[in-house]
Amino acid sequence: MASSSRRRELDVAALVERARAGQPRAVAQLISLVEDASPQLREVAAALAPHAGTAQVIGLTGSPGVGKSTSTAALVSAYREAGHRVGVLAIDPSSPFSGGALLGDRIRMQVHATDPDVFIRSMATRGHLGGLSWAAPQALRVLDAVGFDVVLVETVGVGQSEVDVVSLADTTLVLVAPGMGDGIQAAKAGILEIADVFVVNKADRDGADRTARELKHMISLGRQELTGPSWRPPVVRTVADRGEGVKDVVEAIAEHRAWMVGNGELERRRQHRAQTEVEAIALQTLRERLADVAGSSALSALAGRVLAGELDPYAAADEVVRTLDTTP
Amino acid sequence: MASSSRRRELDVAALVERARAGQPRAVAQLISLVEDASPQLREVAAALAPHAGTAQVIGLTGSPGVGKSTSTAALVSAYREAGHRVGVLAIDPSSPFSGGALLGDRIRMQVHATDPDVFIRSMATRGHLGGLSWAAPQALRVLDAVGFDVVLVETVGVGQSEVDVVSLADTTLVLVAPGMGDGIQAAKAGILEIADVFVVNKADRDGADRTARELKHMISLGRQELTGPSWRPPVVRTVADRGEGVKDVVEAIAEHRAWMVGNGELERRRQHRAQTEVEAIALQTLRERLADVAGSSALSALAGRVLAGELDPYAAADEVVRTLDTTP
Repeated sequence: MASSSRRRELDVAALVERARAGQPRAVAQLISLVEDASPQLREVAAALAPHAGTAQVIGLTGSPGVGKSTSTAALVSAYREAGHRVGVLAIDPSSPFSGGALLGDRIRMQVHATDPDVFIRSMATRGHLGGLSWAAPQALRVLDAVGFDVVLVETVGVGQSEVDVVSLADTTLVLVAPGMGDGIQAAKAGILEIADVFVVNKADRDGADRTARELKHMISLGRQELTGPSWRPPVVRTVADRGEGVKDVVEAIAEHRAWMVGNGELERRRQHRAQTEVEAIALQTLRERLADVAGSSALSALAGRVLAGELDPYAAADEVVRTLDTTP
Repeated sequence: MASSSRRRELDVAALVERARAGQPRAVAQLISLVEDASPQLREVAAALAPHAGTAQVIGLTGSPGVGKSTSTAALVSAYREAGHRVGVLAIDPSSPFSGGALLGDRIRMQVHATDPDVFIRSMATRGHLGGLSWAAPQALRVLDAVGFDVVLVETVGVGQSEVDVVSLADTTLVLVAPGMGDGIQAAKAGILEIADVFVVNKADRDGADRTARELKHMISLGRQELTGPSWRPPVVRTVADRGEGVKDVVEAIAEHRAWMVGNGELERRRQHRAQTEVEAIALQTLRERLADVAGSSALSALAGRVLAGELDPYAAADEVVRTLDTTP
């Protein structure tokens, strides 16, 4: 038993050093350590802390079929050409990285598979301790700290956990395709609030003009309700599989970033994100401490007193909370 | 402001006394106090504690259309004839009590509406603080403590929260109807484990024999996997809207109870239920305390240090947990 747990014990400082030197295997090991909540998780987090906070995080979301994977691949190329190291977190059942997509998409990403300055990690939407909203920020923190200066987070835009993941981004792209009424519907249903840039992909198809027009109309309506710093999300057209319009997307992202830096919005977003992350970890810690008490004879004795009518369940819960260990 | 909050302050001791004396309005007020998590919640819980723990709790579940409301009404009649005071918690969008059912069902329950020894409370599946699994045990505790010696909890058997509610019962009835393949499917999918008694309602219809046979076959297969105290769920046939077979159901419930009392299973179930309830209240308390910290400048300062790379998010979360107030 002891030897098997020893076997998994890794030299974290050396691992971080190798990852920062560009070894993909070291990056992958660090991500595995944090997303599986290994016993070394805290050690890793502490080792990463001084290096984190420099990456530009870009979220991509949209309904299945709008071309998220193709757009991600095209953006990776664009940022590589500009000399950036690029990380990709693909959280999407239909993503080529997580195994569900067409062969063409897979081949399209192959070009990056051998590039040491591109790191691609797929994350299943289930099976992580504490869910995706736990694992994704940890993985993002690794990519950030080991030196990827651009990180793309790709996710299908449905479900609360995916929205949570998008909230990790500095700039969020919402992709739609012509003739996909559901894209617009999704936008109406709340995606408008999270979009910093709209991308009409497959813009060579019929209906692209109309889709762009509808989006712009929607944006102008939405803006009337805004009270905070006001950014009008641009609508950019792309044909991602031919690389058309991708430079415009990169430009729109840069403009959004400049706007955020100028008025303090970037700091606000990052502050909010850090608070949310700390709060989520604290709640998880408390859950674990509570589970320790729940597994003990203390809870059993308290429940017995509730059954006997000596104690009400609230007074019993107060006892449980009082005995909870709040020291690290 | 003060006067409006004073206005809602009730004399809990007097309320409990009136409820125990049989005043339906006092019972309703107590339930409202606990299910809305009023500031007087703890006072109510403390006042009820010495009186709770005597009611026999019977859960009814099954797919929409199997005749849950009709069966509930028939069971109320049967227990009333035996001289019991009967409480009903109806947690079902299609229940006549919660407003979704056919006129016929409503009229069928009317007979009990004017009986002071029957108390019917409908609970919406949404809108309660902490969800249904929070509100239902509180309401059940009120009905128990104010002297209803039989409490029927009726819920549609889909979704985790409904399963949680069923877990409140000493004895759980699973209703199926002939020719409803989905009933059997649901049973296969997990309802088998929670059923203490199966009821084939609408047993005058074609296919009742086959449904009963299939259930018995399923039960015999399921029993092979059992390791704990072994109870073979009986399969009882009813035509609830004509009152046929209802006595057999009451008898099966009594047999199950006698079996549970005989081998200590009733105590085990109630102990487990009390532990679960205390644990849920403790977690809710911790969430609230955490929200207090989250709203303070302490979290904001910690998040700032995370952003500056001085602290990792785990160390920051430890700080949050350490400052958490665990005194009542």
